This record gives sequence, structure tokens and C-alpha cells, in this order.
Amino acid sequence: MTSLEKLIAVEDIKQLKAAYFRCMDTKGWEEFPDLFTQDAVFDVRGALEMPKPEVDYAKQPVIAGRVAILDFVRAGITPLISIHHGYMPEIEIISPMTAKAIWAMDDTLLPPPGGPFRKFQGYGHYFETYAFNGRWRIATLRLRRLHVEITS
Amino acid sequence: MTSLEKLIAVEDIKQLKAAYFRCMDTKGWEEFPDLFTQDAVFDVRGALEMPKPEVDYAKQPVIAGRVAILDFVRAGITPLISIHHGYMPEIEIISPMTAKAIWAMDDTLLPPPGGPFRKFQGYGHYFETYAFNGRWRIATLRLRRLHVEITS
Amino acid sequence: MTSLEKLIAVEDIKQLKAAYFRCMDTKGWEEFPDLFTQDAVFDVRGALEMPKPEVDYAKQPVIAGRVAILDFVRAGITPLISIHHGYMPEIEIISPMTAKAIWAMDDTLLPPPGGPFRKFQGYGHYFETYAFNGRWRIATLRLRRLHVEITS
Repeated sequence: MTSLEKLIAVEDIKQLKAAYFRCMDTKGWEEFPDLFTQDAVFDVRGALEMPKPEVDYAKQPVIAGRVAILDFVRAGITPLISIHHGYMPEIEIISPMTAKAIWAMDDTLLPPPGGPFRKFQGYGHYFETYAFNGRWRIATLRLRRLHVEITS
Repeated sequence: MTSLEKLIAVEDIKQLKAAYFRCMDTKGWEEFPDLFTQDAVFDVRGALEMPKPEVDYAKQPVIAGRVAILDFVRAGITPLISIHHGYMPEIEIISPMTAKAIWAMDDTLLPPPGGPFRKFQGYGHYFETYAFNGRWRIATLRLRRLHVEITS
Repeated sequence: MTSLEKLIAVEDIKQLKAAYFRCMDTKGWEEFPDLFTQDAVFDVRGALEMPKPEVDYAKQPVIAGRVAILDFVRAGITPLISIHHGYMPEIEIISPMTAKAIWAMDDTLLPPPGGPFRKFQGYGHYFETYAFNGRWRIATLRLRRLHVEITS
């Protein structure tokens, strides 16, 4: 690939991830699934709570497939106000069809009154791979936390 | 336009918006007005308070024109410490002269002691259009909130 | 330099700064020093406390040299959870070997229980220069604060 082709792919992947955050936070569920490959893998094991040393998160299942990812995210986000931000991507274009990236991130989740907590704030990194087939899509997503803060 | 010309425009618009945030938060009022077209439209109706269902924000006036925008922003920001951040732009270059974008954003406003509140934190998206005439400038800006949090 | 060469350099510097934040927050001390030139200057004077009007920060020493920077940052960060984010770079490529940028930033520092405070949150801008020698590296870094908030 030429340098120009790589730069175009880098910007396209930035806009793909921007659409991911925007769809999640504005509840744009029609646009959301096409941001993932059919068989995408979504691994946020342990990311939604204070990590518990007694839990082996690697033994928990990941979410597999675009439809299951939509169902999982939509069910979790629908009752909440959510704000997800991404930062400082390190995107590497491996070939015209494959790429990977690390993104810093944070998210704020605000359940309705009477929920299990008042505010969730999480900080961490996404480790992702992408596949190109007409457009770039997220192929695998893994979230690892630096810190989680829950206000009750 | 070539792909390269579009990438240059995308980066130029990112730096335009970066200057917008920097001028606002460092109170760089001399540089600020030239970031907008002469007849720019600045629509932050309802963005500076908890949205009130009884208010029809669409009936409120927008700020029109570079000079009015400067006056409005400078008057609002001068007494405060402000921190505005933009994230995850989705920039579309429509022609050599026109572009549009969505930006995720948040802002923190800290009035001096004795002010109406201690801290304002807002989260949302900017929907913007741009015009090129020697340089890119903001032509229209519309802010829509995901959430507003006011600490008294 | 061609426009394309400048765009490549801009993206490379974004990824350099992304690695800076990631190494700091994930304590990646092996990768960290090579992000700086041998004789880099690291100026965060006054950035780690509420600015005190009686202190002349310009008279305090800066950290000079890659090894001293590593020692300073590693000693400060090792006991903490840290979250550093950069935003909205204004990167200017001056020549094939030199560049400069302004970055908006914020950081959150969380000491272990019993530390001098519970949470530090800082907001400001980095003013940086870069040098290219096989890869881009940070040559000078200066942090200026908009605001610091310390929760005890």
C-alpha cells in the first residue's frame, strides 16, 4: 500500500470508531450493527464492574457476532444516559484488508433514579482489529480497564 | 477533489476546531472571530442549562454573525474557568469550499466563588458546517446535549 | 516537503503522543524513554499542585535528558493509578526534522489509600517540539494548566 492509501485507511478507521461511539450514546441502533463484521468478537469481560480478584474473567464468554453485540449493547445502554469518548488512537494498517489499533477511552454511565448506582465512570484502552470489505468494520474489540469508579 | 486534497482539508478542519477550543479556554479573543465566517450561525440553545420540557428552544434566537458570536462567547466565558474538549470527529468534505462534521464534546465551567453554581459539566455533540475561503472557517455550529450536570 | 509528507508526519506525531500517554498510564517504562530525544527537556513546573502565587516557577529547574525524564515520571507514577488524555492537536511540521504542537490535555491521578490526597484532576495544554531522526521524538514538552482540582 502507498502512504496515501494508509492515511486514508487511518482516517476511515477513526471515523468508524467515531460512529461507534456516536451510535452508542445517541442510541442509533439501526446504524450500529454494520460497524461490525458479521462474526465480530466483543470482549468487555470485567469492564463493567470493579475488577474482583476472585473472578477469572478469561473463563467468561465473549459476545460473538454482530447481532449478539447489538443485542448486548442495546440492552445495556437503552435505560441509561451514556457518554463514551475515545482518544489518541495508535492505528496500524497491516494490509488493504486488515488493521489494528489501540484507543484510550473513558465512559460515563448514568442509570435512571432507583438504579443500582448513580454514576459509573470507567477508564481504559480498547485493543481492536478491523477488516475491510467495501468499508472498514470492527472485527475484534477488547476493553481493558485502568480504573473504574462507581458512585452509589 | 483527490483523496489527498480531502485528507488535507480534514486535518485543516481538525486544527480549526482545535483553535476554537484553545481560544475559548485561554481567552484568545483576538484569534477567535476569524475562526468563523462573517455570517456564521451559532446555535447553543438550551445547552447551558438542564433542558426544561416547558421551554421550546426552537423558538429562541440563535447567535448570528461573527461579531455577535464573539460578544456572546466572550461575555459568557470571561468570568469563568472553562475547559472544552472535542473528540472523535466525523468530517465529510463535500466540495473544495464546503464541509460538515459531527464532534463529540464535553465542557466544564467553573464560576468564581459566589457564582450561581460551583461546577457545570456538559456532554454532547456539535453538528457543524464549514466554508473555505482562503482558509476553513466554521459556518454553522449547533450543539445538542446528551447530559448536563450542575453542582451547586 | 509535499503535503503528503506533512500529513504522514502529523499522523506519526499523533501516534508518538498516543504512545506517550499509553506508556505513562500502563507503566510501559521500557518503551517510554525512546519517545524522547536524548537531550529532551520536560517542563511541568507548577503543574502538579494548585499554582501558588508566591512561588516563581520559572526559577525551578526543568527535567533535562531522556533518562532524567524517565526517572522523574516513573517515580511519580509508579504508586498511582493515572489517566492522561490528549485532545485536539495543532501540529505544525516546520521541516523534515522539526515540528511543534499544542495539545489540550487532562489527567487524573489516584494515589493509594493513605496518600496525600484522594484524587488529582488537572486540565491544560502541552506546548511541544519534536525532532525526527529515524522516527519522531519529543524534544521539548511544557505543560501549562487551565485548572487543577485536588480532592482530599
